Amino acid sequence: MTPKAILIICDGLGDRPIAELGNKTPLEAAPGNGLDKLVAKGACGVMNTIAVGIRPGSDTAHLSLLGYDPHIYYSGRGPIEAAGTGLQLRTGDVAFRGNLGTVDDIGNILDRRAGRIRNSEPFAQVMNGIEIDGVTFIARAGTAYRVALVMRGEGLSADISDVDPHVPGVPITPVRPLKDTPEAKHTASALNKFLAYVRPLLVNHPVNLERRAQNKPEANYLLLRGAGLYSELPPFSERYGLKAACVAGAGLYKGVAALMGMDIVESPGATGLADTDVRAKFETALKLVAGDYDFVFVHVKASDSLGEDGNFTAKTEFISKIKNAAEIFDPLPEGLLVALTADHCTPCANKAHSGDPVPVLFSGHGVTPDDVTEFGERSCRKGGYGRIPGLSLMDEILNLLGTAHLYGA
Amino acid sequence: MTPKAILIICDGLGDRPIAELGNKTPLEAAPGNGLDKLVAKGACGVMNTIAVGIRPGSDTAHLSLLGYDPHIYYSGRGPIEAAGTGLQLRTGDVAFRGNLGTVDDIGNILDRRAGRIRNSEPFAQVMNGIEIDGVTFIARAGTAYRVALVMRGEGLSADISDVDPHVPGVPITPVRPLKDTPEAKHTASALNKFLAYVRPLLVNHPVNLERRAQNKPEANYLLLRGAGLYSELPPFSERYGLKAACVAGAGLYKGVAALMGMDIVESPGATGLADTDVRAKFETALKLVAGDYDFVFVHVKASDSLGEDGNFTAKTEFISKIKNAAEIFDPLPEGLLVALTADHCTPCANKAHSGDPVPVLFSGHGVTPDDVTEFGERSCRKGGYGRIPGLSLMDEILNLLGTAHLYGA
Repeated sequence: MTPKAILIICDGLGDRPIAELGNKTPLEAAPGNGLDKLVAKGACGVMNTIAVGIRPGSDTAHLSLLGYDPHIYYSGRGPIEAAGTGLQLRTGDVAFRGNLGTVDDIGNILDRRAGRIRNSEPFAQVMNGIEIDGVTFIARAGTAYRVALVMRGEGLSADISDVDPHVPGVPITPVRPLKDTPEAKHTASALNKFLAYVRPLLVNHPVNLERRAQNKPEANYLLLRGAGLYSELPPFSERYGLKAACVAGAGLYKGVAALMGMDIVESPGATGLADTDVRAKFETALKLVAGDYDFVFVHVKASDSLGEDGNFTAKTEFISKIKNAAEIFDPLPEGLLVALTADHCTPCANKAHSGDPVPVLFSGHGVTPDDVTEFGERSCRKGGYGRIPGLSLMDEILNLLGTAHLYGA
Repeated sequence: MTPKAILIICDGLGDRPIAELGNKTPLEAAPGNGLDKLVAKGACGVMNTIAVGIRPGSDTAHLSLLGYDPHIYYSGRGPIEAAGTGLQLRTGDVAFRGNLGTVDDIGNILDRRAGRIRNSEPFAQVMNGIEIDGVTFIARAGTAYRVALVMRGEGLSADISDVDPHVPGVPITPVRPLKDTPEAKHTASALNKFLAYVRPLLVNHPVNLERRAQNKPEANYLLLRGAGLYSELPPFSERYGLKAACVAGAGLYKGVAALMGMDIVESPGATGLADTDVRAKFETALKLVAGDYDFVFVHVKASDSLGEDGNFTAKTEFISKIKNAAEIFDPLPEGLLVALTADHCTPCANKAHSGDPVPVLFSGHGVTPDDVTEFGERSCRKGGYGRIPGLSLMDEILNLLGTAHLYGA
């Protein structure tokens, strides 16, 4: 077949040595040989997804790893999350990520996630399609308590305050313009009118009446944050000449891929959680490259979430699951390149993203092997790639595939 | 002597492991100790001549290695090839590289190189100095069937189509403006008139009459490509404070050096081909630095050409010739720095340039040795220099020479 590539990004994979793991990192400590087999025939390195010492968000890191400089293309989390729900954005839209929350009668936040209510769909429906002051509000259910909102109309701005105060127990305040521009004022004003308009629709929603009877937190407020003014991304297929698909469980990563025009392919058992079926995701990717697709981006989420929980035992177990699932790549089909890395490290000790470099491996088509034998944060420091910038990852993939554009003559 | 430097660029030197060479690269497999002796007292690294994963042309790569950012200074292949014939370009000139080709009576290309005719000089003479619509056409013979053409006049543009359709069997079409500007239209129109004007001069040229009698392909058309609008480069000597010479066989590299104001020094037996006298080139460089010159750029071409042929046996033999020739640097004269690298890799498997990093060695004056003992793509990955950008090569050479400008105070 013509050379094809699978890029696997294990969110927050990298870590720091942990005393309880014998001073190993979860990646170094996790049992399983699947990744080491790829390394044995491949070459490794470390990578700063943004730059040395920079602590990346998942959104900016993914843009960078897929070759879209976030300093140019990042316009906030809202548009990406909104795209992840399947919403088709248009240049000029202002998009938000949001939670259904519970506020009391005088507007204090009781619960930022409305008791982690499982289905936001009925609430998104009543908020969708409302028009106020020339702005159309488009609401779309995300997973569980999440709702994406898009404001569509002339002259909107993302320079407005969040609705969500990010902590419970404080009052909701009206949205404020953050710049003294007609656009910011118009956007804040229309959004405040919208929130007032939908309040009774939420309060009196049949699902809430039911929850009230059951003494469950009601989904009676839309807590918005991450406003972003969307502008169209150059399509991935045109940028790289690759027909691309995304296999991911979590919304953000589907959103990144959707904004780039990749096809989002569902994989059985992909949940975005620790119970996800990693092997099935890898299998789906292999099927896609055996068919029409030239490039598959696979995202695995739970290594990050477990790091943010500080749960190094569970993180190590989950990484072991990734390692075992990677046995499916042994042997690699002729003409296939597999690259595996992370978007950032999430050290369990920090319970947060860090700016440490991530390990990266390239195996298969076009790769000149090095003598690294294990895939880990420290072994990869000695790899043949040295330290490379995340923004160059796609260029290197094209180079290995043999389809890189010649610069000059 | 004051510290001086020789920079040797072996075109397309780097490669990938080849099964028939015992999974070694041609550089790793080639017999000879000359480079390893330099490495033993030197330090190594790998280098992306443009950036990680970017597949460089020879022209852009050489600009970068000599410290001229191609994103700023590259204006197409034409001006460089034209300068390589000894033509003095002026800002505003539009320059082309060209072949003498054979077309039939109705304008179909029969042979893009006129049977690889050996001498283009008599043809360049009849095309030189013609004036049409205020444009002076300057033609200069290159090696074998090659001719460089320069259009000189007011208001010219390089935004025009190639004359050369790049494949035989198709008809020559008139040159078209590629932008809707008066400059592009004027340039295309003048060039079409020129091509029509010189057609009978070529068809009836005494050399062609002779070739017709011998039933050889006639040089009856000038196939132009790579139009570039020349603007003057800052002189190398002023940029680096080094009196510089170039020792090269092939026109492009003489052109790069000439555009930077280096003196082009002929070396006996320098052909730009596999039969070139590499040792004589190195000897010439040593003589030049023993004399007035502070810096000599030596170019060796055939490692690239043989890689493009996919001929790994011949590439390995040629690299062995380079290694043996490099024995002349043992011992290195006091005060001399030798740097040796490539402009890009040309893997035999690809028969084309790749974006893999090139190995680089520094040996002699100012160098802190590392523990690399062999000069190869993989051994250099472990070198003291790690991975460096090609655009920094000249800065590092100045640093080692001890003449780098102090940035700050």
